[in-house]
Amino acid sequence: MNLKSIERVGVTSFPAHYSGPTLGEVGEHRAIEEIVAAAPSRRNGDDAAVLNHASPNSRAVATTDMLVEGRHFRVDWSTPEEIGRKSIVQNFADIEAMGARPIAALLAVSAPPHTPVSYLRGIAAGIHQKVEEYSAELVGGDLTSGNDLVLSVTAIGSLGGSRPELTLDRARPGQRVVAHGHIGWSAAGLALLERFGRDLRRIPEHLIPLLDAHFTPRLNPGRGVVARATGATCMTDNSDGLIVDLSTIARRSGVSIDLHSADITPPPIIYEAAEILDADPWEWVLTGGEDHTLLATTAGDPPSGFRVIGRVGRGDAVTIDGQPPRYGHGWVSF
Amino acid sequence: MNLKSIERVGVTSFPAHYSGPTLGEVGEHRAIEEIVAAAPSRRNGDDAAVLNHASPNSRAVATTDMLVEGRHFRVDWSTPEEIGRKSIVQNFADIEAMGARPIAALLAVSAPPHTPVSYLRGIAAGIHQKVEEYSAELVGGDLTSGNDLVLSVTAIGSLGGSRPELTLDRARPGQRVVAHGHIGWSAAGLALLERFGRDLRRIPEHLIPLLDAHFTPRLNPGRGVVARATGATCMTDNSDGLIVDLSTIARRSGVSIDLHSADITPPPIIYEAAEILDADPWEWVLTGGEDHTLLATTAGDPPSGFRVIGRVGRGDAVTIDGQPPRYGHGWVSF
Repeated sequence: MNLKSIERVGVTSFPAHYSGPTLGEVGEHRAIEEIVAAAPSRRNGDDAAVLNHASPNSRAVATTDMLVEGRHFRVDWSTPEEIGRKSIVQNFADIEAMGARPIAALLAVSAPPHTPVSYLRGIAAGIHQKVEEYSAELVGGDLTSGNDLVLSVTAIGSLGGSRPELTLDRARPGQRVVAHGHIGWSAAGLALLERFGRDLRRIPEHLIPLLDAHFTPRLNPGRGVVARATGATCMTDNSDGLIVDLSTIARRSGVSIDLHSADITPPPIIYEAAEILDADPWEWVLTGGEDHTLLATTAGDPPSGFRVIGRVGRGDAVTIDGQPPRYGHGWVSF
Repeated sequence: MNLKSIERVGVTSFPAHYSGPTLGEVGEHRAIEEIVAAAPSRRNGDDAAVLNHASPNSRAVATTDMLVEGRHFRVDWSTPEEIGRKSIVQNFADIEAMGARPIAALLAVSAPPHTPVSYLRGIAAGIHQKVEEYSAELVGGDLTSGNDLVLSVTAIGSLGGSRPELTLDRARPGQRVVAHGHIGWSAAGLALLERFGRDLRRIPEHLIPLLDAHFTPRLNPGRGVVARATGATCMTDNSDGLIVDLSTIARRSGVSIDLHSADITPPPIIYEAAEILDADPWEWVLTGGEDHTLLATTAGDPPSGFRVIGRVGRGDAVTIDGQPPRYGHGWVSF
């Protein structure tokens, strides 16, 4: 998704309640100490971090994602803890989507000198909370000054055993398409924010889970490993939009995918938000992305925690009940 | 080192000879295709990259470094190929400094929409050239838009066998301090650039190796692995300045380090640059950093390719011929 509505003023304005010394005032070393204190790891602090594998002969899996202020988050909408948590979830979802277990993260940050240290500490605290949930660690990083606040997270996972990883090219006709997690919630939350800002007096309380889904997408740790262990062949996470992400699987696997509209019908909470905003809830479901829902294919029963949403067939199209989807675009950076 | 002399104008001005379409014109997908074409890898293109270990039971080693335009490089001084090469060398030096072998890199880029695609392709080509030298691969990445041109590279290495990694805390009194690579050359090159710009009519031809050392620090692949295999106990790379980096070893190991001035005396090329610039060559040697020289300690003979530059003792100071160094500061980001 694109934060189209933001206007750049050239200088990041951090909310006033992040007071206290700035990065420019305390310097690099003290700022790094604060990050390490907020997200402690025995492996951190050397030229590079050494990762012990969980199981002998396991393979390493690695992915990276960059978050740019004004582009992927806004400091007036998100708390630093939320930014930190999201930066981990979106990377760990990619690790899980290979069927691997996230074990470590590295964080590189560019921040303007007027960034409050308390803000950076909040990002580190959010990261720590999320890596702890996965029994992983923030094992290293880099901090530098720049005009933009930019977070670059790399996640490393462990892929045990000899079963193949869950690549994008192994969907086969006749298999089921299955999903774990919400679809369209993050986009609905963003649409509410774009209309109302983060003004809780204007957003009905029962719609708050949509904002939460946008600020900190939820994914139960270990679903990717479970799916790989119980017969999934192909997996990705819904990051760019349901149709776009499934189209990638279809193209790479040389198959078609037909979704059952009844199995991806938006729940009442999404319909309510759509009514308030005079929007089409199906657009959020089909193009929203950023939910980091795991999407997989399997010849057998859905892995624990997954539900069936469609079927793999011959051909190359992604359809809904056999028809072309109403919305097919997704998130691109340029 | 800090590019203190740069004035931010808010918008990166790419040299005019990088013509052709921009990122904003071709879009994210085509731009990623260009990067993958310039630095091909079979492992790239899925949610995450799976790394096969070189040897059974080897451990993974990971590090990250961020390069911000105007801060770590200037587009009017460096070619994109040089920026790409340097981004790899500085990360792989950290992997080597653990005694590990670099096997993979990930690249996250934030770039303004007016960035020429040919410029990005140049960065990828430089990265590819350098990872090839190490028999490593660029296995994944992320591309997003932002105001700044920011590169975030993560390097992953393989640490084979059960011998301990070369941490910062294992220097012991009586050991030798050894070095592989030039010291002070990058700082001398930067000083020439700050005075003359990259104007080859104004810089004597025989000083060009100093510019080269700044733009693409050289490090023979495998020196870190050799050092670990032949008795080094402790290792780092000279990234922030010789005195600062050795002080880190001294502090972490609880030892003192005495350097022999005769073994770190600047060579004639550095003296010549200093004379032209009316500078003190020792300041470059002692505080320059960014050479990514490997610095290690060992109880035995210097590992192949290393030379003795000092001795580990009891205490906590870093000295030169027993005296406090004339310059002790180093590079910090804020």
